[in-house]
Amino acid sequence: MKCSRRIPVTAFRAGEGLLPARQKLVRDVVIPYQYHVLNDEVPGVEKSHALENLRQAGRKLAGEPVTEPFYGMVFQDSDVAKWLEAAAYALSQEDSPALEKAVDETVGVLRRAQREDGYLNSYFTVKEPGREWTNLQESHELYCAGHLIEAGVALYESTGRDDLLKIVEKYAGCIYDHFFRENPRGCPGHPEVELALLRLYRATGNEKYKELSAHFLDVRGQKPNYFEEERAHRGWYRWGDWNREVLNTDYNQSTLPVREQKDAVGHAVRAVYLYTAMADLAGETGEKALSDACRALWQSITQRRMYVTGGIGSTGFGEAFTVDYDLPNDTVYAETCASVGLVFFAQRMLELEPRGEYADTLERALYNTVLAGMQLDGKRFFYVNPLEAVPGISGKAYPQLDDLPERPPWYACACCPPNVARLLTSIGCYAYSTGCGAYANTFFVHLYVGGTVESGLGFSLSCQTDYPWDGTARFTFHGNAETTLAFHLPAWSEKTILSVNGEAQDLLAIAKDGYAYLTRAFSDGDEITLSFDMTPYKVYASTRVPADTGCAAVQRGPLVYCAEGVDNGGDVLSLSFDEQGAVRALPYDAGLLGGIVPLEADGWRTESAGALYSRRRPPRKRAALRFVPYCTWANRGLNQMRVWLPEQ
Amino acid sequence: MKCSRRIPVTAFRAGEGLLPARQKLVRDVVIPYQYHVLNDEVPGVEKSHALENLRQAGRKLAGEPVTEPFYGMVFQDSDVAKWLEAAAYALSQEDSPALEKAVDETVGVLRRAQREDGYLNSYFTVKEPGREWTNLQESHELYCAGHLIEAGVALYESTGRDDLLKIVEKYAGCIYDHFFRENPRGCPGHPEVELALLRLYRATGNEKYKELSAHFLDVRGQKPNYFEEERAHRGWYRWGDWNREVLNTDYNQSTLPVREQKDAVGHAVRAVYLYTAMADLAGETGEKALSDACRALWQSITQRRMYVTGGIGSTGFGEAFTVDYDLPNDTVYAETCASVGLVFFAQRMLELEPRGEYADTLERALYNTVLAGMQLDGKRFFYVNPLEAVPGISGKAYPQLDDLPERPPWYACACCPPNVARLLTSIGCYAYSTGCGAYANTFFVHLYVGGTVESGLGFSLSCQTDYPWDGTARFTFHGNAETTLAFHLPAWSEKTILSVNGEAQDLLAIAKDGYAYLTRAFSDGDEITLSFDMTPYKVYASTRVPADTGCAAVQRGPLVYCAEGVDNGGDVLSLSFDEQGAVRALPYDAGLLGGIVPLEADGWRTESAGALYSRRRPPRKRAALRFVPYCTWANRGLNQMRVWLPEQ
Repeated sequence: MKCSRRIPVTAFRAGEGLLPARQKLVRDVVIPYQYHVLNDEVPGVEKSHALENLRQAGRKLAGEPVTEPFYGMVFQDSDVAKWLEAAAYALSQEDSPALEKAVDETVGVLRRAQREDGYLNSYFTVKEPGREWTNLQESHELYCAGHLIEAGVALYESTGRDDLLKIVEKYAGCIYDHFFRENPRGCPGHPEVELALLRLYRATGNEKYKELSAHFLDVRGQKPNYFEEERAHRGWYRWGDWNREVLNTDYNQSTLPVREQKDAVGHAVRAVYLYTAMADLAGETGEKALSDACRALWQSITQRRMYVTGGIGSTGFGEAFTVDYDLPNDTVYAETCASVGLVFFAQRMLELEPRGEYADTLERALYNTVLAGMQLDGKRFFYVNPLEAVPGISGKAYPQLDDLPERPPWYACACCPPNVARLLTSIGCYAYSTGCGAYANTFFVHLYVGGTVESGLGFSLSCQTDYPWDGTARFTFHGNAETTLAFHLPAWSEKTILSVNGEAQDLLAIAKDGYAYLTRAFSDGDEITLSFDMTPYKVYASTRVPADTGCAAVQRGPLVYCAEGVDNGGDVLSLSFDEQGAVRALPYDAGLLGGIVPLEADGWRTESAGALYSRRRPPRKRAALRFVPYCTWANRGLNQMRVWLPEQ
Repeated sequence: MKCSRRIPVTAFRAGEGLLPARQKLVRDVVIPYQYHVLNDEVPGVEKSHALENLRQAGRKLAGEPVTEPFYGMVFQDSDVAKWLEAAAYALSQEDSPALEKAVDETVGVLRRAQREDGYLNSYFTVKEPGREWTNLQESHELYCAGHLIEAGVALYESTGRDDLLKIVEKYAGCIYDHFFRENPRGCPGHPEVELALLRLYRATGNEKYKELSAHFLDVRGQKPNYFEEERAHRGWYRWGDWNREVLNTDYNQSTLPVREQKDAVGHAVRAVYLYTAMADLAGETGEKALSDACRALWQSITQRRMYVTGGIGSTGFGEAFTVDYDLPNDTVYAETCASVGLVFFAQRMLELEPRGEYADTLERALYNTVLAGMQLDGKRFFYVNPLEAVPGISGKAYPQLDDLPERPPWYACACCPPNVARLLTSIGCYAYSTGCGAYANTFFVHLYVGGTVESGLGFSLSCQTDYPWDGTARFTFHGNAETTLAFHLPAWSEKTILSVNGEAQDLLAIAKDGYAYLTRAFSDGDEITLSFDMTPYKVYASTRVPADTGCAAVQRGPLVYCAEGVDNGGDVLSLSFDEQGAVRALPYDAGLLGGIVPLEADGWRTESAGALYSRRRPPRKRAALRFVPYCTWANRGLNQMRVWLPEQ
């Protein structure tokens, strides 16, 4: 059973610091920008048409003529839903009549696009009526439904308005009826609705949504494979040749029943969305077989198939996991959405059992790949997150065509930008959780983010911190309560000090599995201070990872750093670490990249002659290597970038 | 104009040593084995059907019923032609009634498959009659014709029999008429016939073949692009979607007229076959614009787009060159045929001007990638030649699906095995050339291969050597002549001694551009000895090559070495060179890999803990690293292999 539950999004109010600043950027810039993009109002960027598709569906259902054809991906609706989810969270944080108006209008568009029976999908309503539910493998109907449901729940929980909730409940009912009555073997080609239904269940208390989520998980991967049967039966294909000859059941995690899955395979976003739902359901039911499978999949990802940046999915072919230890830095995919999904999975695993490794990976994926997914101005986005970029090669030489060295303003497949937006606007739900079951009366702190949180246990906490630039987080207790505060002890901090009202605590005595449990009768105004060791350090990969042998990376706190050409004389490829050398944090530089702590390391610059191959070792000179946080790379024009550098 | 010309294949008789042994293996094993494969007589390997296709064409032309459908690639005929070329060379070296019978039969099959008008192509005769010459871009008709022509010339030059020569002359006449009369803008989608026509011109003295070759080179890349017009006109496609939307004119080197091409682009085999013909024609005509283009393309390849193994073509997508310095070791293509073609190109450049760099690259491609293309038992072949193999990843993880860690016995696209066979059976033509023009009365030695050669200048030379295991080559002069012997001075030998009858010569005085010119009145029995510095050495890539930064490779003489798991405790990924350490040649081991000189280097073995990423540098211990020649890798079962290792 769950040991803790996500706090309501309204329980957290962000303060100062890196994540609050990013959240504010999302509210101030990203959400309005994305709304304009979804409305096709931003010239020069990839056309979205996502809102117009839904408007046309509404026209059609009202008996009016369709004036514009459907445009975009079969899952174009989901961009609207994810934006709406982010907008809902934003509305809980700050009044914005303009945003409220946009949300009103969008909900109205969705209402008109919903059929009498509850069905709501602009692609099938406008473009392929009659083919609803006949191609679950490729059509993303349940995926889009899932995102709509999440938006409905988010708007309800953020603002109390239940208009969209009613729309999605009606749709969920339609799905329930279809899949229990007419197609009991069917399940989503792209998982997402499973985790959404569990959120809807919790928001409404209606057990049928949990039942449907569990059903989708149960039927997945049963023999004979539903998707193989479906495609043989329907005889047509939505995508290209590569998907035509043999169905790759690994691609959508349907090779085995979910409880028998041990290796993270296939499309990485599908995978982590599925595992998130599995962990969530395991927490609701307490089923050991399901939580064991989640643990095995977690190990598969984090011990064998994850980049140091928390990126997952080693190849663009199928946007997928490949095999153990195949983690190329140049031909990598590491989709932004996949790391968002890894954050979801980690959060559900934390609800299942409070182990620091989940929070460590949550933090790794969030502070590195997720944040790197967005330009510092909030108007450009990475879909793919390489750990090495060499202009002239990256984005140009196959198979690095997707590994762009700069963020584009939008994408034909625009799943990532609104995913980052909805995660950052709900960051409090990942930073804190309220204990339950065996952990009743415990309040968990997983991330250190400035702001104030209502615990749900009769007290609130405020946190002041410059994390991750500074390693101190100061909490103030508001209220009076006998309770337990559980603080995540990041594995990267080799010397953590926890003090209460200035008195250092014996961490050995109160730490367990990466959390420090502080139990006492707290009084209003009590101060709890955590101090982490922010000494920068080198990281080494297992020699089983071919791409990283002989190399090191540098981290400080949760941040993975990278060397960019602009800080290093234009050339990063010629740099290497001095094996005996130090890594130093430089003073916080408010004017650099929105304010960062740069790093400097002792190293070398090799000066190759012009020859492609030469017999003499090219000479090298001592050099001070400069590093900036990976999450801020590619914000200063086209230049080389590397996370892993040779060490000599 | 040419400064030297290829010797007749009959002028060289192989003696002892590595290349002669490989030539004998080709005669004894590979040629009979491939004949059985071409006849579908080897169970358990990829079906060829190449001879049966031609037999069926003969049946059809004779008015008999076609009893078996065409099978295989549109260029399946070329496998027969390349095998026949190798067989022709073999017949010049050793009597073999069995092989003669096979050749007789094959020539008979070809004769019956030839139409009245001279056309000869089983695919179009059996499967797509009426579509001849309508899809030059994709159909490989001229490519197959080129290989047939080369076979006809080879059989004529090797054995004096002119039956196949007449067949191919008739076909060449048919092509001449078609392209000068009916389709004067058409040229080959896959270059090959251009170089073949120049060989036919020299074998027959008929200028029209040179004229046709020059024509094909001249029309290539003119605007509007012929292939774009052709595909728009015909409206159908032979290959898959990837080639459908926009014609990639770089792929077949038709973006620019050949004289304006500066960068080696597109399909690597197409590229080097084209450049070979360009260099060959430039030698025949003395045209500067053409030879300048050849030099630029040569630099593009050898200074920016070539592996240390002489492999070319960095990606399997289009089997193609990518961009400068993109030379990944794991996702590499480096097709065996492309290195065979690079040997051709180098040989034609040497005929144009005697510069050591051409012979250096010829030797690099030959001794490393070309030889690696064939198993030591002559029955398995590499198409793709990676510089790193990690079982579990190589051949399994996209985009390394083509980078197999073991040689398969045959291929659906079987271009490479017979290409290796025809090159090795004619190795004398690459080792020697006879001077002409400004170099009349000069005899060139480009490679050091045991055997005897007729110079064409009234004397012969015999060479005794254990090259490349030993660095001494002893030549004996047979005859009496005042002449110049020009010996290639490999760039890798830092101390070469050239002595005549025991008397060391002043190399500085007689060396120019990588050749030593020894002019004197030679007497019968004179001994010329070359002694090369065989000290093994490390090689470094330019830091512009992202894949090799921080790494070194080891070479000894022309051989690039690699570390294999079987010699290194099963694990190569954990190995690194000691930067201060030595590389040593071990004694020649007759029992290892058919007889090799292994190398040993001072290095390290890093012992990672189990964690994917760790904060402490994993400990390392001193280790003696073992290396074997790259050309012998993957002969001892599945194991790890690396050419480039980190240096620490």
